[in-house]
Amino acid sequence: MSQMASRLDERAARVLLARIAEPYDEFVQALVQEYGTHDLVGYVMRDGRTPDGVDLTRLRSRLDRALAVDDAHICRTLGLRLLVPGEDEWPNPVDELEHPPWCLWVSGPVRLDTLARRSVAIVGARASTSYGDQLAAELAMDLADKGFVVISGAAYGIDAAAHRAVLAAGGMTVAVLAGGADVPYPRANTDLLARIGRTGAIVSETPPGGAPARMRFLARNRLIAALATGTVVVEAGLRSGARTTTKHARELDRPLMAVPGPVTSAQSAGCHAELRMGATLVTDAGEVAEFVGRIGEDLAPVKQGMTVPVDQAGPDARRVWQWLRPRRSVTVDELMVRAGLSLAEVQLGLAELERDGLAEQLLDGWVRRGQEPGR
Amino acid sequence: MSQMASRLDERAARVLLARIAEPYDEFVQALVQEYGTHDLVGYVMRDGRTPDGVDLTRLRSRLDRALAVDDAHICRTLGLRLLVPGEDEWPNPVDELEHPPWCLWVSGPVRLDTLARRSVAIVGARASTSYGDQLAAELAMDLADKGFVVISGAAYGIDAAAHRAVLAAGGMTVAVLAGGADVPYPRANTDLLARIGRTGAIVSETPPGGAPARMRFLARNRLIAALATGTVVVEAGLRSGARTTTKHARELDRPLMAVPGPVTSAQSAGCHAELRMGATLVTDAGEVAEFVGRIGEDLAPVKQGMTVPVDQAGPDARRVWQWLRPRRSVTVDELMVRAGLSLAEVQLGLAELERDGLAEQLLDGWVRRGQEPGR
Repeated sequence: MSQMASRLDERAARVLLARIAEPYDEFVQALVQEYGTHDLVGYVMRDGRTPDGVDLTRLRSRLDRALAVDDAHICRTLGLRLLVPGEDEWPNPVDELEHPPWCLWVSGPVRLDTLARRSVAIVGARASTSYGDQLAAELAMDLADKGFVVISGAAYGIDAAAHRAVLAAGGMTVAVLAGGADVPYPRANTDLLARIGRTGAIVSETPPGGAPARMRFLARNRLIAALATGTVVVEAGLRSGARTTTKHARELDRPLMAVPGPVTSAQSAGCHAELRMGATLVTDAGEVAEFVGRIGEDLAPVKQGMTVPVDQAGPDARRVWQWLRPRRSVTVDELMVRAGLSLAEVQLGLAELERDGLAEQLLDGWVRRGQEPGR
Repeated sequence: MSQMASRLDERAARVLLARIAEPYDEFVQALVQEYGTHDLVGYVMRDGRTPDGVDLTRLRSRLDRALAVDDAHICRTLGLRLLVPGEDEWPNPVDELEHPPWCLWVSGPVRLDTLARRSVAIVGARASTSYGDQLAAELAMDLADKGFVVISGAAYGIDAAAHRAVLAAGGMTVAVLAGGADVPYPRANTDLLARIGRTGAIVSETPPGGAPARMRFLARNRLIAALATGTVVVEAGLRSGARTTTKHARELDRPLMAVPGPVTSAQSAGCHAELRMGATLVTDAGEVAEFVGRIGEDLAPVKQGMTVPVDQAGPDARRVWQWLRPRRSVTVDELMVRAGLSLAEVQLGLAELERDGLAEQLLDGWVRRGQEPGR
């Protein structure tokens, strides 16, 4: 481990990584899998190559600018919270993604760790019809009345109709942005985003000031699917971007629903395709609540009682827990490398986590357990 | 066995039963299960009670009139064919019904035994919308182009739209009526039925001249489901009569499909309910053909090669085969009683049927095998 790298804590390493690379960059993701965020950033900062000789030069292009940023100052100035895994407000369900975000910037009063309990993503076409807008609004309003947080992407069409209806109903809504959480996009929805930020939350994994680049929209859609308990697609063409959200919801094995429409409408063709692929047909908020709520109830016993918050665990246990994943086993060897701990420290940490219901040993390693640390 | 009864053959017994009772009459069905059509009719004709004392008086009210009918003359005059099980044209899939028809009257060039191969029922609301009518017509026309026979009930709305489109496309369509096959209903569709009868087929289990009584519509719907390889519901209110057809399709384990529509349309609510219950969403004829065709292909190897036509079997084997059912085991004892054969005759008959792939012995009795006798 270099001296420079050892000066960075895990949190700082993640934020730096978010500034020098994109979460959808397969090359970077492979490196993170191999070396861990902390060590990878260390290698980038040291001499731009890993100990086994992988060239990291391309990650150094944004490095100087990234190191010059004072994140604490930016967050204070813009009213943002900067979250990394293991913290109270970190929304653990996003760690189920194949490529989880390195960190999240958030503004607004809704805490992201509450979304796992009762939230629905309403997504759909930008070029929606009045039929779709009306249904999105009705669904969103009725779900808000039932106490669900409605998550969407603040785009034109279905997204905006859903957000607006929740605000009108006095409910809570969360917008996940492709650009920085401080960058209103699309511009025409600036007022809408300001209102969402006052009563709900605005979330992004793109650092503040970051542009809503094309690829970031696709990456953003995976966050929407991962943050929500369930996803409803209201209207979507066959090639609508909203269908990347449904793809991720399916991969995450989350409740996926679609609203049917006239088969003569191209903007319902994507919904019908989803229904043919196994999505559940819903026609009103009651059916959505029943489907999502049922799943939620199924999970409830696991969520409560058995686990204690991970922030009550000792420092080594917390460090180990950060490197565990809910759906993929991690070996003790891997944990030693990732967490930078001795065998004894990892083993004691795992024993503590297991006792508290926060980790479980499987045949091929350890997995994370416990859905809601920090409460 | 009484002298009068022994004068009737199986065919005449079934026709007489159709004239004195209704197929949906649970009391009569229970008696048929118990004694068989042939013996039951014998008891009705003899003294109106079974050997073990069940009162059959209520079945005698229409008896005199029924005995006075000359069926052969009526069929010749009206251009009808009278079918009973075991004949070449008998559509064997209807025997999978819990209450199969006793006989069928048919007019028109389409043979009913060909329907099992490539047919689709298109059903739906009488009070359809223009959206539903248009879709029913498109589906029907495109399915006809693909060589499917389209089966429906000649009612207003979806039924009529489907039949008309097939006729316009020069395809084959079959109307299953609640009243007699010679009784056009609804009256406004008299011309439509005449055209269907010239190029397709008109079918009914109600004797010629019979009125389209309310209960007969529900009974008719089970025949539509049983005659078709698969069923599509295009538009239906939640309490639409078309949903009795879908119920039977589901019970028969046949491909069941529904076309979605606006969730704001009450005439699509029944379709959406079917989709939530597991029906397959279809938006065009290609999807219908794929779903129904796939099932058809799956069955094809069973249909061909293994079986020889039952009409090439000996007389005892054919008699036994008539009393076998595809989904319910029948014991040798039952077969002796039903077919009026000795133990040896039944056993030799079963052996012959088994050798030819027409019957199979299960733990609790024998079932019918082979889907296409007579070809």
